[in-house]
Amino acid sequence: MAEEDKPESGFVKEIRKQSVDFPGWYNDVVRKAQLADNSPVAGTMIIRPYGYALWENIRDPLDGLIKETGHENWYFPALIPLGFLQKERDHVAGFAPEFQLVTKGGGKDLEEPLVLRPTSETMIATVLRDYIQSYRDLPVLTNQWNNVFRWELRTRFFLRTREFLWQEGHTFHETAVEAEEEVAKMLECYRRIAEEWCAIPVLAGRKSDSEKFAGAQYSTSIEGMMMDGKALQMGTSHYFGENFTRAYDLTFTGRSNEQQYPHSTSWGMSTRMVGAVVMAHGDDSGLQLPPRIAPLQVIIVPIFRSDAERSQIQTALQPVLADLEDLRVKVDWRDERPGFKFNEWELKGVPLRIELGPRDLAKGEATVVRRLNRAKQAVPLGELAVAIPAMLEEIQEALVKRARDFRDAHTVKLDSLEAMVSFFDSSIGFVITPWCGAEEDERTVSQRTTATTRVILAGSSGKGRPCAVCGRLAAVEVVWGKAY
Amino acid sequence: MAEEDKPESGFVKEIRKQSVDFPGWYNDVVRKAQLADNSPVAGTMIIRPYGYALWENIRDPLDGLIKETGHENWYFPALIPLGFLQKERDHVAGFAPEFQLVTKGGGKDLEEPLVLRPTSETMIATVLRDYIQSYRDLPVLTNQWNNVFRWELRTRFFLRTREFLWQEGHTFHETAVEAEEEVAKMLECYRRIAEEWCAIPVLAGRKSDSEKFAGAQYSTSIEGMMMDGKALQMGTSHYFGENFTRAYDLTFTGRSNEQQYPHSTSWGMSTRMVGAVVMAHGDDSGLQLPPRIAPLQVIIVPIFRSDAERSQIQTALQPVLADLEDLRVKVDWRDERPGFKFNEWELKGVPLRIELGPRDLAKGEATVVRRLNRAKQAVPLGELAVAIPAMLEEIQEALVKRARDFRDAHTVKLDSLEAMVSFFDSSIGFVITPWCGAEEDERTVSQRTTATTRVILAGSSGKGRPCAVCGRLAAVEVVWGKAY
Repeated sequence: MAEEDKPESGFVKEIRKQSVDFPGWYNDVVRKAQLADNSPVAGTMIIRPYGYALWENIRDPLDGLIKETGHENWYFPALIPLGFLQKERDHVAGFAPEFQLVTKGGGKDLEEPLVLRPTSETMIATVLRDYIQSYRDLPVLTNQWNNVFRWELRTRFFLRTREFLWQEGHTFHETAVEAEEEVAKMLECYRRIAEEWCAIPVLAGRKSDSEKFAGAQYSTSIEGMMMDGKALQMGTSHYFGENFTRAYDLTFTGRSNEQQYPHSTSWGMSTRMVGAVVMAHGDDSGLQLPPRIAPLQVIIVPIFRSDAERSQIQTALQPVLADLEDLRVKVDWRDERPGFKFNEWELKGVPLRIELGPRDLAKGEATVVRRLNRAKQAVPLGELAVAIPAMLEEIQEALVKRARDFRDAHTVKLDSLEAMVSFFDSSIGFVITPWCGAEEDERTVSQRTTATTRVILAGSSGKGRPCAVCGRLAAVEVVWGKAY
Repeated sequence: MAEEDKPESGFVKEIRKQSVDFPGWYNDVVRKAQLADNSPVAGTMIIRPYGYALWENIRDPLDGLIKETGHENWYFPALIPLGFLQKERDHVAGFAPEFQLVTKGGGKDLEEPLVLRPTSETMIATVLRDYIQSYRDLPVLTNQWNNVFRWELRTRFFLRTREFLWQEGHTFHETAVEAEEEVAKMLECYRRIAEEWCAIPVLAGRKSDSEKFAGAQYSTSIEGMMMDGKALQMGTSHYFGENFTRAYDLTFTGRSNEQQYPHSTSWGMSTRMVGAVVMAHGDDSGLQLPPRIAPLQVIIVPIFRSDAERSQIQTALQPVLADLEDLRVKVDWRDERPGFKFNEWELKGVPLRIELGPRDLAKGEATVVRRLNRAKQAVPLGELAVAIPAMLEEIQEALVKRARDFRDAHTVKLDSLEAMVSFFDSSIGFVITPWCGAEEDERTVSQRTTATTRVILAGSSGKGRPCAVCGRLAAVEVVWGKAY
């Protein structure tokens, strides 16, 4: 851990420039804004309180949406017998390379190794066999909040670590139609969390076959554009059809008294969202947090030169703090220069700063500074109760608009492979093309540009035109991007 | 899984009698009230939605108290290198028999096995070395919500499983005085959760040396009496002095510029609390939930014989539901007999039932039935908005009073070993005696009664009297009980 990261030595704002070294900038911001830090265990990270509070502010509204849509939280064991995982062929093929195995317990070798869950489809299908007998038992709508484990080789804060936190929903339905509605409904919850809370506009749609979840009939995802033009998959929702229920022999007695397999789904959103918020809104000064999820919405920096001034400000702040009590507000009384504090809270992305000194007080005002473009504004003290919540609302909107404008400015529609190659050589962002759907086209594009398909856009605007890659008849429009 | 446990087949209320077979009664209630179920993985359990919702209602207020007292949530990795765990001699001696070891990851043997955390003192001391340099960095007040793993041989729903959920707080202080204040402060938070939310009165105090946490200088706990007279340890708070910081070479520069070791603490409360609530309040009809933590506070059972009556009740319920919208209320419209529903919601421990039929409606009333002693009362519909919250408050108080009366009626003060033996032979409950503090006395009592020391009572009322076990001069008063 670097010396400048110590809490006590305060913030040294030497973060690499976003425009010059985006991955370096990202690492610096995550560590210096104290979201997370390196761990002594390879491939894992320490989530620090500021990062965890941000995660709580994403997790809690998501938990609310999951419950509102009729799902219930369960808890299933983290250790899954290897045999459970081996029943669905595609699933085990996809996940086996990432398994971490428990082979000893209580001082003895285990008869069968236990796998630290990389995801819980296999455990939940096994357990729910005992709960689902008849069509009257369906749907079963489960969710759990937990840690999962995947043996990643190249790791990155929040985006890819050997252990991470998420929720995983698993549902079982009588019909394919209901299951597919569920897949879409939960993707819509993720879209709302991304756009309405995290202020990150997303493209939502199906993944191509080569990008789908191991064991799914199809996967859907929401994808956001980060400030380096790359795509980040921020939440996924999968349709399994009968794949898992057949593999786990999970049947129910249908309305006409026949044994049937339920149609199942799963969907997940993780601590990766914290990384998304960093990369979608941050700038060279550090983090920039959407007010709805910011652990601290308003930082108050008192400015004084004497004890008399200090206590004058303290008195003036009493009614202000009472006015703002529904917000997440803190007064920074530390014995540091105001400029140091301004830098630190900018680095930490606090949406609004209130500066209050003797000159402001003389006028009965406070100086309010937005983190977004540092716009300053004098506000009468008595009006803060109304002005501050309104400004937070407005910043929330401005951030999502800015992110949307950025994405739209970096998204082009192209018709040929050469145009795609030239775009990805010289520009950042997304390319939309007609596509025939052939996996070999994805290989071609990936080899020449490193871009992959992100999502297939709904609707049929690609149909009838030639595929941009191979010239055959296109079936869909697809979004290409370099991805995390 | 037994047939009667299937959600669709409804509840068959054949639970064993509490007075005849307490462990059998406990298992039946946990499973039939759908709190938890057997898992296909040895030693673990499935927490079902009703049990998880109950846990959420304990967890959330505890999280609130932890934050109010200045602690911050972090997240530390679940896998701890074996070497970390081996540094504190007593700690590793205590926990090693319960280790579960990950020896393979990504298809390869690991160079050093990783232990699934049984508790995180060793990981957190290792990490915080990098955050604590000076006395100005102290105190550091951490908490985390997580799963832990202990290789238990005899397992029991919620009380002892190979994986469980908890919070573990870990704090580091400049002085012993501050650390000991912290230990007491967090035990007090646990006392409040137990008594004010879970309605379980507790005895709080130090554990004897033989009962303390592996690696602690001393441990404190809260202990409740279950309906079988046994003691359940419901939360623990430990003082480590410099034990862990010395073992992990965690130092800080003190006020007079010397290198010092912080004094550390840890404290935890777990899903075991769900088991405590079952065993402290349940009866032969099933669960009995304190209103503050009940997932469902009020169940409304409409009683009708025709569609016309049904829609009449539906209309009458609209304003009632609006009046009760701040409570956790549900209407049971299922196509089942009222008696079936009454039994089921009694089994699930819902504190209040509202019955509403044509005869009630004709009088403009509802019949309100308490789960506690089934007291019935007619309440005018327009008064439910005031009456129901008041009744819930009153039930919360009545439950804690009943549990306190039960405990007090089953607690005796004794002066001799023979009296203790005779008590534990013929009665259930706690015995309080003067005690000299010798571990051999604990062995003697345990051999003759299976009871152990639970907590040492604060104050000095034992001093100067003869130890009940050995007759030497007593130093303290101690509570003896048979324990879970």
